[in-house]
Amino acid sequence: MRMVDLIQKKRDGQELSTEEIQMIIKGFTDGSIPDYQMSAFAMATYFQGMSEQERADLTMAMVESGDVIDLSEIEGVKVDKHSTGGVGDTTTLVLAPLVAAVGVPVAKMSGRGLGHTGGTIDKLEAVPGFHVEIDKQQFIDLVNKNKVAVIGQTGNLTPADKKLYALRDVTATVNSIPLIASSIMSKKIAAGADAIVLDVKTGAGAFMKDLDDAKELAQAMVNIGNNVGRETMAVISDMSQPLGFAIGNALEIQEAIDTLKGEGPKDLEELCLALGSYMVYLAKKADSLEQAREMLEEVIKNGKALEALKVFLSAQGGDGSVVDDPSKLPQAEYVIDLEAKEDGYVSEIIADSIGTAAMLLGAGRATKESEIDLAVGLMLRKKIGDAVKAGDALVTIYSNQDQIEDVKEKIYNSIKISKDKVEAPPLVYGTIEK
Amino acid sequence: MRMVDLIQKKRDGQELSTEEIQMIIKGFTDGSIPDYQMSAFAMATYFQGMSEQERADLTMAMVESGDVIDLSEIEGVKVDKHSTGGVGDTTTLVLAPLVAAVGVPVAKMSGRGLGHTGGTIDKLEAVPGFHVEIDKQQFIDLVNKNKVAVIGQTGNLTPADKKLYALRDVTATVNSIPLIASSIMSKKIAAGADAIVLDVKTGAGAFMKDLDDAKELAQAMVNIGNNVGRETMAVISDMSQPLGFAIGNALEIQEAIDTLKGEGPKDLEELCLALGSYMVYLAKKADSLEQAREMLEEVIKNGKALEALKVFLSAQGGDGSVVDDPSKLPQAEYVIDLEAKEDGYVSEIIADSIGTAAMLLGAGRATKESEIDLAVGLMLRKKIGDAVKAGDALVTIYSNQDQIEDVKEKIYNSIKISKDKVEAPPLVYGTIEK
Repeated sequence: MRMVDLIQKKRDGQELSTEEIQMIIKGFTDGSIPDYQMSAFAMATYFQGMSEQERADLTMAMVESGDVIDLSEIEGVKVDKHSTGGVGDTTTLVLAPLVAAVGVPVAKMSGRGLGHTGGTIDKLEAVPGFHVEIDKQQFIDLVNKNKVAVIGQTGNLTPADKKLYALRDVTATVNSIPLIASSIMSKKIAAGADAIVLDVKTGAGAFMKDLDDAKELAQAMVNIGNNVGRETMAVISDMSQPLGFAIGNALEIQEAIDTLKGEGPKDLEELCLALGSYMVYLAKKADSLEQAREMLEEVIKNGKALEALKVFLSAQGGDGSVVDDPSKLPQAEYVIDLEAKEDGYVSEIIADSIGTAAMLLGAGRATKESEIDLAVGLMLRKKIGDAVKAGDALVTIYSNQDQIEDVKEKIYNSIKISKDKVEAPPLVYGTIEK
Repeated sequence: MRMVDLIQKKRDGQELSTEEIQMIIKGFTDGSIPDYQMSAFAMATYFQGMSEQERADLTMAMVESGDVIDLSEIEGVKVDKHSTGGVGDTTTLVLAPLVAAVGVPVAKMSGRGLGHTGGTIDKLEAVPGFHVEIDKQQFIDLVNKNKVAVIGQTGNLTPADKKLYALRDVTATVNSIPLIASSIMSKKIAAGADAIVLDVKTGAGAFMKDLDDAKELAQAMVNIGNNVGRETMAVISDMSQPLGFAIGNALEIQEAIDTLKGEGPKDLEELCLALGSYMVYLAKKADSLEQAREMLEEVIKNGKALEALKVFLSAQGGDGSVVDDPSKLPQAEYVIDLEAKEDGYVSEIIADSIGTAAMLLGAGRATKESEIDLAVGLMLRKKIGDAVKAGDALVTIYSNQDQIEDVKEKIYNSIKISKDKVEAPPLVYGTIEK
């Protein structure tokens, strides 16, 4: 069958077969199907959607378009976590040592960041000496020994997805649930996940601003995972404001340390316990979610979670003593409290805009070539629903520049104060277990 | 605005401005908007359609993408006729001299054919000596003198349409009423038409198989024409079987001669009178359609229509005496009657399939490089609704090969005989005058 006939089939709302989807992804990857046909196909998919079977087929065809990481030498069920992204999201830094401490193997492939703050690797590099330049065998050995290790992107994973995403980005076909879901799931599966826990963000600071869209995306990904033999569960969590308090690389490491000690922001701790329970349960280290949660609470209380972080950092060249003395992390020259100008209640914290303020300080990359300043960033001192009085600190700014009027202005514009009492938003909107 | 934003606007069902459509067509023509964005735009248009204003804007943007033929030196209202295409359609050969005979200027730009039979130029070249290699000034002078002349494609007309059509053809976006309508109308306007008469075919042998689709397309084109200052009218005519009897180049010339004498197939004559009345009326040579029709019937009766054909052919180097002695047209070596195998009534003549049979004889081009045999083709001896007896000639085959079992087989498979009486289909399903 010719590609034009397959485009027409999709356009007319008919279901494509497994072989037809394989043909499309193979041809697109090797260049025999040109971009102009693929973009027409993506737009037809935008309007007609995809069946459960088509979504599973598309996911696996993209997995098979490149390398697939083989983690079979690691003992146990390899559970990966994925977040759809937001501002000040420190969950990965907390979760990796937390679930490792109860015996769940965490073999994490991570990347660097673009935008608000760095990626997981950038953040970890705030720990003096830490590096991810280890080879695959070292990576596997470390996970077997310590239950947790992080490696940089390796191999040519899901080239079809990379190529398709670049095309969707310029053809107004990004916002298609089947295409988003199969893109995310293909990357997790290619990276070697046996089971997957998803953190789907919703609210003003999230990609999925609308709760119904977030639920639909979460359900789509859970269905794909289960249909291709990877148990998958999802939590739909709030991103109407940044998670936790810290936005910035060293600041987020410190927040992760606090959280692993049971002294972190309550929203971050709660979300980590929710996501962590799913990870422990899917790794078959607990018989129920309740039991999983108790195990995680226990390792926070008895210090084993914090110890797991120390071991993990040290094993990859990092100075593990930062866990006991966070002042060894990079420190900013200027620490400035930004004060509220009026009394009232915090009614809005525009996450994107707060994230951009942190990026302007140097915490994130404006372009791929930008250098990150690991020390700088923001600590929120108030969150939505909190009462404030004029003169109270709203945000503490950690900066290496003293002229930061533009950043202050941006932060003021990002935080709305209302005269009326405001309810804090819920943290978790729902979970999808099947 | 970036192209991706314009694609999104169309995707979301919003109306594009005149400037936005101009930007798209200009960018696509000069290559600054790549094919992969244009095909996504075409697919979004397939699903979301276009407003009246967008269709008019798209048409004029495509007209302005290339040369526009200036026919202002020709006296009178230049009315062009366009048919959406079918099998054995001899209307242009009849209409050009017919309306010229009542004083309507016919300045026809034509092409060669691909498929069933040749294009108008191929057919005219069946007249010994006839040629279209005249320059623009000769063309204008001939129309002013004789009211009719034909020239080959000249200039770079509607390059945007050519490029877009080629892209639509391979991205399953051909079947979009706004895109089809603006494509056709842009070509007619660029070729210099002041007013346009459309023959929109419907039925099994037409591009628009469904009557409602044909009506929608006709209305869309009439609206575009009137919105851009070109009075336009449409006839929706039957193509559930070939029009007239002849399929083949010299055979169609002979059929045109017969029709101009009032001795042609009744369906062909009737459709030419209907389309011709619109042409005469739009050219302001008559005050009503009734009057226009009477004028055309008169020039058939008094021989002026036939005389106009003779003058036209002679003026472009052709042997005008073929009008009096059609045996001077190319003649096929073998003339074979294909006989009915059973009694009954003709219930179906599959136009596409009959057309392919004529092409196999050499009457049409299978590929752009094929040579046409001007002498060969088919004459239908029965049409839908006619009673037949076993042994009656169904079709007369004009061939220069004696081994034509495949052609015979194809024709038998194209003509269905029913035991029950069958009604002949109507010739005209409707007209659209505004």
